[in-house]
Amino acid sequence: MRNILEYDSVELSPNGRDVIILDQSLLPNQEKFLHLTSAEQVFYAITLLKVRGAPAIGIAGAFGLAMCMNRFRARNLQSFDKEFLRVKRYLYISRPTAVSLMWTLDRMERCYYEALEETKDMAADAAIKQIKERLTAEARAIKLEDVQKCLAISEAGFSLLKPGIGILTYCNAGHLAVSRYGTALGPIYMAQQKGLMPKVYSCETRPMLQGSRLTSYELTKAGVDVTLICDNMASDVMSRGKIDIVFFGCDRIAANGDVANKVGSSMLAILAKHYGIPCYSLGPSNTIDFKTKTGNDIVIEERPAFEVTDQYFDKPVAPKGIKVYNPAFDVTPAELLTGIITEKGIFSPHELSKLNG
Amino acid sequence: MRNILEYDSVELSPNGRDVIILDQSLLPNQEKFLHLTSAEQVFYAITLLKVRGAPAIGIAGAFGLAMCMNRFRARNLQSFDKEFLRVKRYLYISRPTAVSLMWTLDRMERCYYEALEETKDMAADAAIKQIKERLTAEARAIKLEDVQKCLAISEAGFSLLKPGIGILTYCNAGHLAVSRYGTALGPIYMAQQKGLMPKVYSCETRPMLQGSRLTSYELTKAGVDVTLICDNMASDVMSRGKIDIVFFGCDRIAANGDVANKVGSSMLAILAKHYGIPCYSLGPSNTIDFKTKTGNDIVIEERPAFEVTDQYFDKPVAPKGIKVYNPAFDVTPAELLTGIITEKGIFSPHELSKLNG
Repeated sequence: MRNILEYDSVELSPNGRDVIILDQSLLPNQEKFLHLTSAEQVFYAITLLKVRGAPAIGIAGAFGLAMCMNRFRARNLQSFDKEFLRVKRYLYISRPTAVSLMWTLDRMERCYYEALEETKDMAADAAIKQIKERLTAEARAIKLEDVQKCLAISEAGFSLLKPGIGILTYCNAGHLAVSRYGTALGPIYMAQQKGLMPKVYSCETRPMLQGSRLTSYELTKAGVDVTLICDNMASDVMSRGKIDIVFFGCDRIAANGDVANKVGSSMLAILAKHYGIPCYSLGPSNTIDFKTKTGNDIVIEERPAFEVTDQYFDKPVAPKGIKVYNPAFDVTPAELLTGIITEKGIFSPHELSKLNG
Repeated sequence: MRNILEYDSVELSPNGRDVIILDQSLLPNQEKFLHLTSAEQVFYAITLLKVRGAPAIGIAGAFGLAMCMNRFRARNLQSFDKEFLRVKRYLYISRPTAVSLMWTLDRMERCYYEALEETKDMAADAAIKQIKERLTAEARAIKLEDVQKCLAISEAGFSLLKPGIGILTYCNAGHLAVSRYGTALGPIYMAQQKGLMPKVYSCETRPMLQGSRLTSYELTKAGVDVTLICDNMASDVMSRGKIDIVFFGCDRIAANGDVANKVGSSMLAILAKHYGIPCYSLGPSNTIDFKTKTGNDIVIEERPAFEVTDQYFDKPVAPKGIKVYNPAFDVTPAELLTGIITEKGIFSPHELSKLNG
């Protein structure tokens, strides 16, 4: 069994002709790598959650676009141009809420037009070859930058840790969801590699169980001492002195420092405050949305009842037709957080304006 | 579909020869009543959680013992005596942690010896007939007293409610677990019957899902407006002003007012305090154990990993061999509770000594 940090959940083969993903929908029961070789295969891998986690989806989109163009046998620049725009538009809608996917595909398009301009005096064959190389390099650069951000976040978070520290984490903001190391799990991997032997508690994270299915899986694979608990056991482990620090990710941060993250994050922040335990949210600085003034302005996605009553179960666990409230996220007010950790360092939630611009 | 309050989860047939239970292990998918007619059937109904909830188990044990003796064809008093002690000892160990079961079976034994004494000058046939009647009456009295306690608890809790109130409840301390009305759900049924139209939020209660499988089921059947949420969504619904009061049960109360109840209860109490919402624990006064000084003296049962990773799921949801911490209960410190509600009224957790003796 390879250590999970030896490979990534989304990779582009050395020749640029295969996107290789770890099929997250089969975890933790089956560990299967898929070689995606067409736009359709990339589209369905994203739609069917075989690749998930906003940054990972963005990287898969960029790699998918580069892979498709590397495989495309263009008769001329016109047919190449037509195919590029077709694939880009097609992948663009594979996961409508993933802003990161649109961001990486738009960046690939800007790169494409630059390359087109750079090669305008060249023969078609040579131009197409060079454009393909530019797109491949750009996709690889997108991933590399993401890895570097995660590394900087990991280092900032790591600075707070000491040997044998007890860490509570939530949902999955790790190697699988982001790129190498992840955000909230980054400092944990770094602590493990540097011999600090952290003791991690992973909340299962209902209803989609990212904590049991993914976080427990990837930390176990990396040799980290991880204990799975149900979300309602967080107070108990905190009361027993097993938790020294809480780390979770972030989906969107308002200008005032309020953090939207997986539902239940606000519960952890309140419990941590009660027990006097520091609590941090970790993510890249582009998660801060300075146009959103406070958490009240963040619209929370409500998801179907099915996830709570049927998904993953062998039979329904609630009476048919039961009313279910299933928000995907909740908002942790800035004052409950000890700090927000980005690739630029550790900040008080109230001083985020320093990061603006 | 009958209203759930029209029947009980554990009944003794009018002729005293059948114990009739609603098979809780099949809920909410199937609603099946079982007629138990032997000691073995009662034993397995308890062991296999077909009847669950400490008071309900105690009542099932007393009914089971009466039923077995009513069916037993005694040749003489000696054979009757031998059979009584055999059945009592057999049922005694069907659920070793259920103190209520031992309590009711010991009470049945005391009744048996009293009846034996009362009938000592009678002919054997007449004596056996009278002893059977005494045992049947005692078992029915045990249940009736339980119903009356629940009714008194319901009335005390009801006094705190107003029309349209939002109530958060946890696990299952209701009609199914106790006897008619239940404890924590008692005030809710009363509010519904009196037209207060409470809006109830039921936490699913991982890992055994008593909140989704049982509480949502029984409240729905009674026509109560109930919304199911995952445990990690309690903070979110509280932050949105949907909860005016929190009601949960209790498994054991220490002399200082610390309450052991289903794991996650302490989480709800901390969240309630944070949001300024009153939080009560409800149960019969014999749940208070004056020999246990504080919550620290309560030993918490740890249950198998299987419940978290496999039970109810169609495939395992965590990597094989993952370390799991699965405490069945946690302790809510007295200072986090607004009050403790028993059949004797509403008490501050700090003044429980008034109830001693």
